[in-house]
Amino acid sequence: MSGGRRVAVVAGGLSNFGVRSATWSELVQEAGHSTFGAVRNFSAKDVDSLFVGAAQPERLAFQSHVAPMAAELLGFEPTKIIQRTELACASGQSAIRSAYAAISAGLSDVAAVLGVEKMNLPSMAEANTSMADVLDRSWDGVHGATAPPFFAMCAQRHMLEYGTTAEQMAMVSEKNHRFANSNPSAQFYSKTFSREKLLKLPMVAPPLRLGDCSSMTDGAAGLLLVSEELARKYTDTPVWIRGTGQHSHFHNLSGAGSLSSWPGLRAAAQEAFRSARMEPKDIDLAEVHDCFTISEILEYEEIGFCPKGKGGQFVADGRSDLGGDVVVNPRGGLLGCGHPLGATGVAQAVEVFQQLQATAPAARAVKGAERALVHNLSGSANVHSLMIYAREN
Amino acid sequence: MSGGRRVAVVAGGLSNFGVRSATWSELVQEAGHSTFGAVRNFSAKDVDSLFVGAAQPERLAFQSHVAPMAAELLGFEPTKIIQRTELACASGQSAIRSAYAAISAGLSDVAAVLGVEKMNLPSMAEANTSMADVLDRSWDGVHGATAPPFFAMCAQRHMLEYGTTAEQMAMVSEKNHRFANSNPSAQFYSKTFSREKLLKLPMVAPPLRLGDCSSMTDGAAGLLLVSEELARKYTDTPVWIRGTGQHSHFHNLSGAGSLSSWPGLRAAAQEAFRSARMEPKDIDLAEVHDCFTISEILEYEEIGFCPKGKGGQFVADGRSDLGGDVVVNPRGGLLGCGHPLGATGVAQAVEVFQQLQATAPAARAVKGAERALVHNLSGSANVHSLMIYAREN
Repeated sequence: MSGGRRVAVVAGGLSNFGVRSATWSELVQEAGHSTFGAVRNFSAKDVDSLFVGAAQPERLAFQSHVAPMAAELLGFEPTKIIQRTELACASGQSAIRSAYAAISAGLSDVAAVLGVEKMNLPSMAEANTSMADVLDRSWDGVHGATAPPFFAMCAQRHMLEYGTTAEQMAMVSEKNHRFANSNPSAQFYSKTFSREKLLKLPMVAPPLRLGDCSSMTDGAAGLLLVSEELARKYTDTPVWIRGTGQHSHFHNLSGAGSLSSWPGLRAAAQEAFRSARMEPKDIDLAEVHDCFTISEILEYEEIGFCPKGKGGQFVADGRSDLGGDVVVNPRGGLLGCGHPLGATGVAQAVEVFQQLQATAPAARAVKGAERALVHNLSGSANVHSLMIYAREN
Repeated sequence: MSGGRRVAVVAGGLSNFGVRSATWSELVQEAGHSTFGAVRNFSAKDVDSLFVGAAQPERLAFQSHVAPMAAELLGFEPTKIIQRTELACASGQSAIRSAYAAISAGLSDVAAVLGVEKMNLPSMAEANTSMADVLDRSWDGVHGATAPPFFAMCAQRHMLEYGTTAEQMAMVSEKNHRFANSNPSAQFYSKTFSREKLLKLPMVAPPLRLGDCSSMTDGAAGLLLVSEELARKYTDTPVWIRGTGQHSHFHNLSGAGSLSSWPGLRAAAQEAFRSARMEPKDIDLAEVHDCFTISEILEYEEIGFCPKGKGGQFVADGRSDLGGDVVVNPRGGLLGCGHPLGATGVAQAVEVFQQLQATAPAARAVKGAERALVHNLSGSANVHSLMIYAREN
């Protein structure tokens, strides 16, 4: 760990994810109510800091300076720290890491975290333009290198080098959609996607079909983080942040090197495990960034759940499913829940919080889970961010 | 202070500020060269974290995920933390505070901070739209309540209640432009603005004339923060972060209460002084957020440099000038240097760093300065962010 104070998660909540008629503000309030509405001994006055994870509110909600706007909507008047963090698709986890640093340093005692994105505008043209800004626009975006083509290239290379198949990728999507099928907050709640159906969906960027890609989603999620001394004021079952890791090693694609290996993820995962004093085998469940099916396969390998090149086989053998080595994306992942950029990292942490508290619904409960990992990537998988949580401090 | 580790500033640098033909990326590189190019014993490999303060790169530079882009431009591969922070006009200081928290918590040892904004686009229409997003767009922006009208209302009310005059406001602008006149990095370098000239400039929002308003500026600034153990590796004269305060208490203007008092600033300043174990009289120089002349007058009062209502007289008596009680905005302030949103808070800290190191140019040197304060406001003065620095740890 660090030299600072221990930090606990004591509450978490979600808005429903999907194509919503709700505004940005309404999403914030919905997640706020779910997160803070029923916390024991909690008063809005307790919150001394607010960290908002939001990727592109200026373009997608025509609003800047969103942290104080969220504070007002939630009834908070932060007296210590207020800020928004942006790290594209990992903006939500970036906000959690900022809250963790602030409490750990002694600069905050009770920090609210709110992740939010409103992506389904009246017109999708603005949203598509916005997504093209995530990769380096002047080097890559102008040549059409947005997210689907980039991850398609990763898949092509992985198939070539390691024999990964379209069927194995569809198994990732099938698993995550099965979890989402019984998750009422997921975009694809009560929708069925068989492997056969997935393999017939329209092609987006070969070999990635529609079901291999996460969607444009509206949603918000919240978390309450506190210092060790306050943890049991708010819950009898706090969940502890045990470690974290992050790595950034290029931006424009000319620096990516291999597309079938993500050394930045390997380095960030090693740092997370080192700081948590754990190994991959200690992890009972993992929420990883399945923006595309190939991502989850690469993540099994680089995080260390299976040997390099064996990610396709890992899912095919059911080792990332309930009853396997590690349950991956039990809430339904980005593929099943949708991917509202700023909300995703927070929603993943909410799932881990509920699983480690043993309050997750039975259909996806990881029984006896003690330790969990959350992973986000951002951009062209050039930045990887991880956190490790546990029931034990 | 906090319970965490002590944090030192060991380097700072700037791009030139102004209406620049340079791109966003070129501004980052210019400030990076100025900040990191000649630091003793420094290698880009030392940097484990990068915090980028940028308000609206998605709208103003058509680029998101800017933190890893800046890392690549600067030759950094952060292994601990990478993120962008946004807090509108205080985005730069928000990045510094994040770096401070990370080092204090033991999560980073060597953190680079980069503040940047490219505001002068080929067309100013986009920039004007962007600025209208800073206040609450659906409540206030749609009624024309953008920055100049809001601060004009503050001025009107302050004049009514306390007898503040247009001449006193012009004295703020005259002082800050005089400092900028000899500051080569300032937007209004080698430009002369007499009080008489300022009082004849076109009216923007009564009573605020053009010379009462800061400008749309391109610029970037950098800072290197390290933990106590590393401070003297990089410089013999580190400058120490001694305290910080922040307060957020409304967003849409219906919650503003008085326009002639800013209680959020009073609360944030008290927290900064409490955490630094200092009082207003201990401060030798202050970089405060003179986005408009009336702002600086209100800031004298709410920070505690003079009694409530006496801010106009304070500047008229020369008490905020060289040789006065506290030298305010010796680099030229936002009025004289320009206001590239994300760069401003970092540039203010660079000035304080140089002043406390006694390396500031003679024309604006605050001789024997030991302790300094930096203040940023954001939005409709609804959020106030302060830091206190000193030569002594």
